[in-house]
Amino acid sequence: MIVALCGGVGAARLLRGMERAVGGASITAVVNTGDDTERFGLHVSPDLDTVMYTLAGRVDDGRGWGLAGETWTVMDALEELGGPTWFRLGDTDLATHFLRTERLATGATLTEVTAELCRSFGVGPRLLPVTDDRLRTMVRLRDGDEVPFQDYFVRLRHAVPVSGVRFDGAGAARPGPAVLDALASADTIVVCPSNPVVSIGPLLAVPGVLDVLRHRRESVVGISPLVGGAALKGPADRMMVELGGEASSAGIARGYAPWMGTLVIDETDASDAPDVEAAGVRCHVAPTVMTTVDAAARLSETALAAVGSR
Amino acid sequence: MIVALCGGVGAARLLRGMERAVGGASITAVVNTGDDTERFGLHVSPDLDTVMYTLAGRVDDGRGWGLAGETWTVMDALEELGGPTWFRLGDTDLATHFLRTERLATGATLTEVTAELCRSFGVGPRLLPVTDDRLRTMVRLRDGDEVPFQDYFVRLRHAVPVSGVRFDGAGAARPGPAVLDALASADTIVVCPSNPVVSIGPLLAVPGVLDVLRHRRESVVGISPLVGGAALKGPADRMMVELGGEASSAGIARGYAPWMGTLVIDETDASDAPDVEAAGVRCHVAPTVMTTVDAAARLSETALAAVGSR
Repeated sequence: MIVALCGGVGAARLLRGMERAVGGASITAVVNTGDDTERFGLHVSPDLDTVMYTLAGRVDDGRGWGLAGETWTVMDALEELGGPTWFRLGDTDLATHFLRTERLATGATLTEVTAELCRSFGVGPRLLPVTDDRLRTMVRLRDGDEVPFQDYFVRLRHAVPVSGVRFDGAGAARPGPAVLDALASADTIVVCPSNPVVSIGPLLAVPGVLDVLRHRRESVVGISPLVGGAALKGPADRMMVELGGEASSAGIARGYAPWMGTLVIDETDASDAPDVEAAGVRCHVAPTVMTTVDAAARLSETALAAVGSR
Repeated sequence: MIVALCGGVGAARLLRGMERAVGGASITAVVNTGDDTERFGLHVSPDLDTVMYTLAGRVDDGRGWGLAGETWTVMDALEELGGPTWFRLGDTDLATHFLRTERLATGATLTEVTAELCRSFGVGPRLLPVTDDRLRTMVRLRDGDEVPFQDYFVRLRHAVPVSGVRFDGAGAARPGPAVLDALASADTIVVCPSNPVVSIGPLLAVPGVLDVLRHRRESVVGISPLVGGAALKGPADRMMVELGGEASSAGIARGYAPWMGTLVIDETDASDAPDVEAAGVRCHVAPTVMTTVDAAARLSETALAAVGSR
């Protein structure tokens, strides 16, 4: 059994390859909920949906999120009314948020709703929200304002410098009911190539997760989200620098070293390998850019082999 | 200045005629919010929307509610996911609920949001929700269950007998900020041909409304929603009987007599006139079926003339 720690797009693409490599039934994905948001009264879980839509073969590959073949009637009508439309939700995507919101309102947990949605979408791997409790990534902008993650990421197009990140609710959040057991009993734990600050960070902030990971350090293998010191998508590299770190695979290794034994880094960053090892993390160099599902399958096989799991 | 007490479809059609007759600027509509509901996290105000869409010339005349030329992409997608779709909301209609829900969540009142939406839709008359507070019509079914109004009206297609109606929240609800002043200073108060139990009833249940109406009795003119003892649309006639009353214009008159001086009844019910007068209510007989906007304009002129306002 493999447990993957997941953000959104990068994780989704790795999981799609991993499913091809080892089969969906062997995979549990523990997914970030820190970028969940309430829009128009709807509970939106962007990372869960990106992973779910990708594994269902329904994702819009160009955008990386949302459903393929989407229409935008509701957003267009909202725009005509002068409403706020910076957070765009497609018509068929909305059905997911409607169902989730309605089930949560009638007492279901996010874990339960996620399982129901995954069944409807025919998703193989098990998806576990890291917590059923409220967890919200808040971003402190360098100009002083603190804003919810989606305001930073979508409304401000992550084009403004940040000075801090806080996971609101993390102190009181309990791990999802199957999360700690899954981590404790996994053969291998894979850290997906996701933003370490705002995708993996919230997972680690949920009490109990880091403790289990520390005990499982030798079974934890990460894949660096950086290629040539830059994020392929999103603000991971800039955020790492702005928050006082270093945008490099060595920087990733130093951050994860207390609980991750092995890191796969991209060929272009091969020169980082000594620094990764110096941080006490075994380093594997491999192609990490997932241009195809096959490439993602090979990458996941590389990661699993690196901790002797394949 | 005319103030109209309003439910949904019947009221909307009368108001459309009244606007033609006297101009939108002279009309304030106090609208029922007892059938408001939260669906999928969205705040839906069916009567406000029916009145607003009708006055905007955007209503689907065939259905009587919702927007003309509507599409149903979101509901179709929800159905595919196995979600609950008995309360159908069209794609462009959803934009209204999104905007309302978002504004309410950021602290706006329903009165404010309604004014904003009416501006966007180009509605002439002023629409006032009877209250900004929570007011929910609950229907006791004869089989013993109590259900929210929309469950009775839409899910059960008002096809089951009822044994009681309760306006949840009414005791603590305050009238909308302009409602009592509008009623107190109106030249004429028109009771629209709406369901007396579940459209007009909730308005009367908001503390303060009935007191003002009693003081204005001579300026209050109603239009019976019954034609030949039957409701043209909806369950008004059956509800009146099931709740121990009589489905007739005389029954309406007896119910409203403490605060309504005049009632317009349909020609087919002319034989009811003596019973209406016996209830202490002046009776005017006129055609009340609003097959066209002109017919609705004539009906509103008849009602206004009946209390000497035109």
